[in-house]
Amino acid sequence: MHTTPASSLSIADVREAAERIAGRVNHTPVIRSPVLDALAGCELWLKAENLQRVGAFKARGAMHAVSRLEPEQRARGLITYSSGNHAQAVALAAREFGVSAHIAMPVDAPPIKQAGVRRLGAAITFAGTTSEHRRAAALELQRETGGVIIEPFDHPHIIAGQGTATLELLAEVAARTGGESLDAVVVPVGGGGLIAGASLVCEHHQLPVFSVEPTTCDAMARSLAAGERVAVEPGPTLGDGLKPTRVGALNFEVARRAVRGSERVDDEQLARNLVRLLVHAKILVEPSGAAGLAGALQLLRRLDAGAAHQDIFSSLERGRPKRVGVLLSGGNVSPTLVAELVARYGEEV
Amino acid sequence: MHTTPASSLSIADVREAAERIAGRVNHTPVIRSPVLDALAGCELWLKAENLQRVGAFKARGAMHAVSRLEPEQRARGLITYSSGNHAQAVALAAREFGVSAHIAMPVDAPPIKQAGVRRLGAAITFAGTTSEHRRAAALELQRETGGVIIEPFDHPHIIAGQGTATLELLAEVAARTGGESLDAVVVPVGGGGLIAGASLVCEHHQLPVFSVEPTTCDAMARSLAAGERVAVEPGPTLGDGLKPTRVGALNFEVARRAVRGSERVDDEQLARNLVRLLVHAKILVEPSGAAGLAGALQLLRRLDAGAAHQDIFSSLERGRPKRVGVLLSGGNVSPTLVAELVARYGEEV
Repeated sequence: MHTTPASSLSIADVREAAERIAGRVNHTPVIRSPVLDALAGCELWLKAENLQRVGAFKARGAMHAVSRLEPEQRARGLITYSSGNHAQAVALAAREFGVSAHIAMPVDAPPIKQAGVRRLGAAITFAGTTSEHRRAAALELQRETGGVIIEPFDHPHIIAGQGTATLELLAEVAARTGGESLDAVVVPVGGGGLIAGASLVCEHHQLPVFSVEPTTCDAMARSLAAGERVAVEPGPTLGDGLKPTRVGALNFEVARRAVRGSERVDDEQLARNLVRLLVHAKILVEPSGAAGLAGALQLLRRLDAGAAHQDIFSSLERGRPKRVGVLLSGGNVSPTLVAELVARYGEEV
Repeated sequence: MHTTPASSLSIADVREAAERIAGRVNHTPVIRSPVLDALAGCELWLKAENLQRVGAFKARGAMHAVSRLEPEQRARGLITYSSGNHAQAVALAAREFGVSAHIAMPVDAPPIKQAGVRRLGAAITFAGTTSEHRRAAALELQRETGGVIIEPFDHPHIIAGQGTATLELLAEVAARTGGESLDAVVVPVGGGGLIAGASLVCEHHQLPVFSVEPTTCDAMARSLAAGERVAVEPGPTLGDGLKPTRVGALNFEVARRAVRGSERVDDEQLARNLVRLLVHAKILVEPSGAAGLAGALQLLRRLDAGAAHQDIFSSLERGRPKRVGVLLSGGNVSPTLVAELVARYGEEV
């Protein structure tokens, strides 16, 4: 267990993580689409973490956390629990550092994510369907093997690693606009690793962050509203990467410093925006990976309708953000589901 | 008409084009996929021109050619003829330079490409199904309006512009490998703009280039075999961007200096490799855009089977290229077709 207080974490930790993982993870592209900009009524800067190694931003945090272990710790083997993308990320980091990995995954993990883990040479133990189930299985594995658990989100090294995606996004926006910044960043939330990392970067730049969760699993939104961490009973959602029972303790403490609003999106929004990104931006995201775009479009609609967030953007021209950053978190999705969704929404997005 | 002799064109023209179009076109990412590398048995470096503006490399050549016109020429309006992607590229360049554009397109141009042209504010005239039909229509438009024809491929400015994709690819390979180079570059061929541009860059680096065409429209392969340009009667193919009756005169003269072999691929290969790029590299290409990967995999299979190209790679370890560059030319494809192909091949690629 870590004992780092949230208050000691800052953008400096993210910058240090970026130096450590450089060359071990992809510097992913930031994609623009005129059609999606027109739909949003502003510039969308899409950070394509679906093009990250293992197809998700999780490679950043895992690679960073594993790089921080002492060699003798690492040699005992890595253990983790994950619905899929963090599993692949730890398997990749284990292979990079030449050690073994053992992963507790839910019984309903998408086959494409299971196959990814196996291809990277890691062992899988199946355990229930919730993050609590698989965490218990990971602790059991640790007792058996003496290996090190690489936390999926609630750890300072994971948070700093995931923050490098937002660090790169802001640097690229500045480079391509001659020094301009974003007006907001929209981030999907599962356990809160990505948004906590984004928050470390964005609080430094005084940039508002918005969280996006499935309507059926809105632990961050409820926790922010309550002012303390709240557990939820996750309901069914296409966003299989966004289903933890609650967000991490450290994640919540860091995120609340920068998050200014929460969006909840349903399966139809995830599906339509997956197809929009495919047709207009030419990239494949998983349903969780489309949550950022779905949330950004909903935020802008609600803003225009006077239904939310007016105060946050009141200093901007037209009271509306001009440049919105969106984190597209991953791209590991079953081809069968892609075929279904494109057949259903492809000609109308 | 241009009168530039092929012998006067070199990598210097491509470098100059790159400077002129910087900031007006995307510096597209080079994507790697461990699964596709395993399939190829070597490193594939995929230049993702599907992520280029208008969804295809054509933006490079058109933007370069239009930037080279005198302002008073441009003001008379731009005219071109194209099956789709060059049409959108000229429409984009016209908008960037604030002039009008009028495009002759085939009656069977994919709706997504027609919609792209209209969205950019250009006018369309439909004309037959072959490049000859639409060229005649463009000449008629020129007589009527006095506008300037922006050739789709057979022009030194177009060739130099398209060459910038390969220039960027080689620079990125060098940067990411600490100065290493590719062993071969594989390029789809329609009229030959992309491969002529690639050839200017590759002949400078003494890198072999391989052409890929549909089996039903193999004008470059036949021309190279004959030692002179040969016209073909294009048959049906999913690769709607690869159907000219013959390659350009200048394109042929430039390409023959660097092209060392030709691959012909059928619709099933285009379809499977479109789906492979979607599932494993997380990007959407059009069938023509998958031709490079289909050709690269076939080249490597034929090489291993002792069926072709042995002499070209005889100096390399195992007589086989270690790093192959592949140009993914575009991503403008009907969502209905994508849904069909992913449903058919998604779970087995």
